[in-house]
Amino acid sequence: MSLDAVLAKIDETLPEAMDRLFGLLRIPSISTDPAYRPDCAKAADWLAEELSDLGLDAAARPTPGHPMVVGHGGGGDRHFLFYGHYDVQPVDPLNLWHRDPFDPAIEDTPAGRVIRGRGASDDKGQLMTFIEACRAWKAVHGALPCRLTVFLEGEEESGSPSLIPFMTENSGELTAEIALICDTSMVSPGIPSVASQLRGMLKDEFTIHGPNIDLHSGHYGGPGLNPLREMARIVASFHDAETGRVAVEGFYDGVHEVPPELLRQWENSGFDEKTYLNSVGYTVPHGEKGYSALEQQWARPTLEFNGMWGGYQGVGSKTVIPSEAHCKITCRLVGDMDPDRLREKIRAHVEARLSIDATVTWDQDLEGSPAAVMNISRPEFEAARKALSDEWDREAVFVGMGGSIPIAGYFKEILGMDAMLIGFANDDDAIHSPNEKYDVQSFHKGIRSWARVLSALS
Amino acid sequence: MSLDAVLAKIDETLPEAMDRLFGLLRIPSISTDPAYRPDCAKAADWLAEELSDLGLDAAARPTPGHPMVVGHGGGGDRHFLFYGHYDVQPVDPLNLWHRDPFDPAIEDTPAGRVIRGRGASDDKGQLMTFIEACRAWKAVHGALPCRLTVFLEGEEESGSPSLIPFMTENSGELTAEIALICDTSMVSPGIPSVASQLRGMLKDEFTIHGPNIDLHSGHYGGPGLNPLREMARIVASFHDAETGRVAVEGFYDGVHEVPPELLRQWENSGFDEKTYLNSVGYTVPHGEKGYSALEQQWARPTLEFNGMWGGYQGVGSKTVIPSEAHCKITCRLVGDMDPDRLREKIRAHVEARLSIDATVTWDQDLEGSPAAVMNISRPEFEAARKALSDEWDREAVFVGMGGSIPIAGYFKEILGMDAMLIGFANDDDAIHSPNEKYDVQSFHKGIRSWARVLSALS
Repeated sequence: MSLDAVLAKIDETLPEAMDRLFGLLRIPSISTDPAYRPDCAKAADWLAEELSDLGLDAAARPTPGHPMVVGHGGGGDRHFLFYGHYDVQPVDPLNLWHRDPFDPAIEDTPAGRVIRGRGASDDKGQLMTFIEACRAWKAVHGALPCRLTVFLEGEEESGSPSLIPFMTENSGELTAEIALICDTSMVSPGIPSVASQLRGMLKDEFTIHGPNIDLHSGHYGGPGLNPLREMARIVASFHDAETGRVAVEGFYDGVHEVPPELLRQWENSGFDEKTYLNSVGYTVPHGEKGYSALEQQWARPTLEFNGMWGGYQGVGSKTVIPSEAHCKITCRLVGDMDPDRLREKIRAHVEARLSIDATVTWDQDLEGSPAAVMNISRPEFEAARKALSDEWDREAVFVGMGGSIPIAGYFKEILGMDAMLIGFANDDDAIHSPNEKYDVQSFHKGIRSWARVLSALS
Repeated sequence: MSLDAVLAKIDETLPEAMDRLFGLLRIPSISTDPAYRPDCAKAADWLAEELSDLGLDAAARPTPGHPMVVGHGGGGDRHFLFYGHYDVQPVDPLNLWHRDPFDPAIEDTPAGRVIRGRGASDDKGQLMTFIEACRAWKAVHGALPCRLTVFLEGEEESGSPSLIPFMTENSGELTAEIALICDTSMVSPGIPSVASQLRGMLKDEFTIHGPNIDLHSGHYGGPGLNPLREMARIVASFHDAETGRVAVEGFYDGVHEVPPELLRQWENSGFDEKTYLNSVGYTVPHGEKGYSALEQQWARPTLEFNGMWGGYQGVGSKTVIPSEAHCKITCRLVGDMDPDRLREKIRAHVEARLSIDATVTWDQDLEGSPAAVMNISRPEFEAARKALSDEWDREAVFVGMGGSIPIAGYFKEILGMDAMLIGFANDDDAIHSPNEKYDVQSFHKGIRSWARVLSALS
């Protein structure tokens, strides 16, 4: 079947494709905040409609959380599953956005034209590259290039509570030869990248309790235990200031060094440490001593503080000793680190360091996910790598990824299906941050890339 | 002039006095938050009206901040100034109040009847004890017992920015023999107390800046410097974990040990360490090792964290490395500690500990106030002590105070006038906290106490 006609179709219908993406970006589908539950449902319905347009038998399927969108279509011997997620991160701090996060627009920047808005890159823009590739193929050939199952989730940014039960209950219809996932970035702008490994994730949150009411710092300043000071002391104890290593006992159990040959491949992948650091205001890597920024990001575990708060945050001053202090934690896991065992170690680390009269409560009990290593020896990986190299006129590379996409591990665990992660985001997309963007080039060539990959695999 | 008739009048008109206090408590005069500026003006006008009722020549006088209420009246040889403040602390966290903070009510509690509401104790209830004493005196004798100047401030809870300029410009009319201040508590319930010393105050606030935008903890977790972790490390460095002492270089310059005889007096003042600690959920004092809770509160300096925040505080989790972290600090000063020099030492402590790629900005520049030691050798102190002992059937005591009332020092500095601090609050009044209260007994016997003190001084 002619690929060139499909690529030409993609070029000529790009404006309409962009309009469709904008329609999806306008829906504030923030999954972590219950206030946006109706918007998540709306995004799911919007996508089910979109897939039906392509002739897939598609529906938004209810779960205890946000709906799953599942569509089946196409024909032939080969059967692939595509996964993406339609939910997005919260938008705070809103005042740092230079436009409404849910009123997307094309903006001209020194680095080129970008699509601005929450979810433009993570993951609405990316998942639409695949759907638009299918749309163009259908338009040219009247049918999809192969048998396809499209599986879109609405809880990826909030721990995917419904994912495992849904996959288990529907394993039959969700099992294909391999899963294609578009939720990752390119190692460097213009360098097409296929993930060879992903970090896992562990989330937790604790509250330190001190006095039974907020206290006046005149009446109790001195004798009074201050939960903020307690939290700071405990948070500071999580890392060794000298080495930058996490100081939780047994934290590094299951962490392996990167094989020298893979490390060499990574170092030649075009990752530009200077740009990576300087673009966000760093001059040096701040992780574990003895590892490059690339290794710190792709191959080393972390214990990160995503939020801390307590006491008075308003204008001016308040002479209070607060009764509580709060801390949100996430860990990135590598190798064989076990999220459940690690959670216990972290909680034990905190509990062992509490002062008399201080107590701790754990406020989240979120699903952890282990790290994932891809089976890059499968022929689909090499076929995809070639197709990507053709589109981008640059040798595509296998790279590590600092992010966590638990789904890759779940596909293997629950469906016995390998996953191949191909994404077109860039590190400066500000995903999870104010002013998120997706390069118009990523969207356009991303669509073209999927058309080539589907052609190569079918 | 008959005192008994005045005391009888106070007893019989207590319900009306309570109603007047409730009128004042209903005005949300939160001085630190610009949103409540009109309410502060309203409270000032309300009090000017009240003083005019007593025949004082009174007015709410404008300042660049909130108004000062000044009233002059009465006659005779003796001239005293009374000081109080009509502004109150913010009410957050609002969800911990069991009623609207500005809808006051009498509540029956196991410990007796209380007036519940923000400002009931600090300082609206306390200042009204003096005004009601004057009202009863006027009702019985047709005139005030002596020449009086009443001076009420609306910025005490927010650093008193307008106070020094106002006192300087109006020093003539504000200078009396001695200043009477009702903004302190009793060392123990039912034990009338006169302050022999107060701690000073220093306020500051800083922001740690890291990356130039919020970052994704997958893309930058590891190599990325996290301002929350930076803040925790620096906050933890402010105290020696072993001794509980503040670790800022030169922090204790100007701090003196309490003279043994005064310490003995304090220890016999009825201060109940067990109740003081247990009532708020502590089992041991958490301040400097080697000092009793009483010394830690009255005679030792502190560096306290009143608010810390940064990153995501919402429902669920957000995998972000925030670009900023914030911390509000207050210090309680004793002896000859110099607030201005101390501010420099604290800022130097932070700046010396910043990592590469981290910067700090200082977000407040609030007036500091040195500690104050009272001139208890003046005859007015002994006269007042006797009058209080009569009212409470219990020897009144000279005690230290953990709080800071800068005004006492300013009266001395600017007007050359000593101050005498007499208050009827209790440590469990939850001032600055949710569910603030003032004992009905404190209000009632407080009014009677001022009638006795005025009688004794006039």
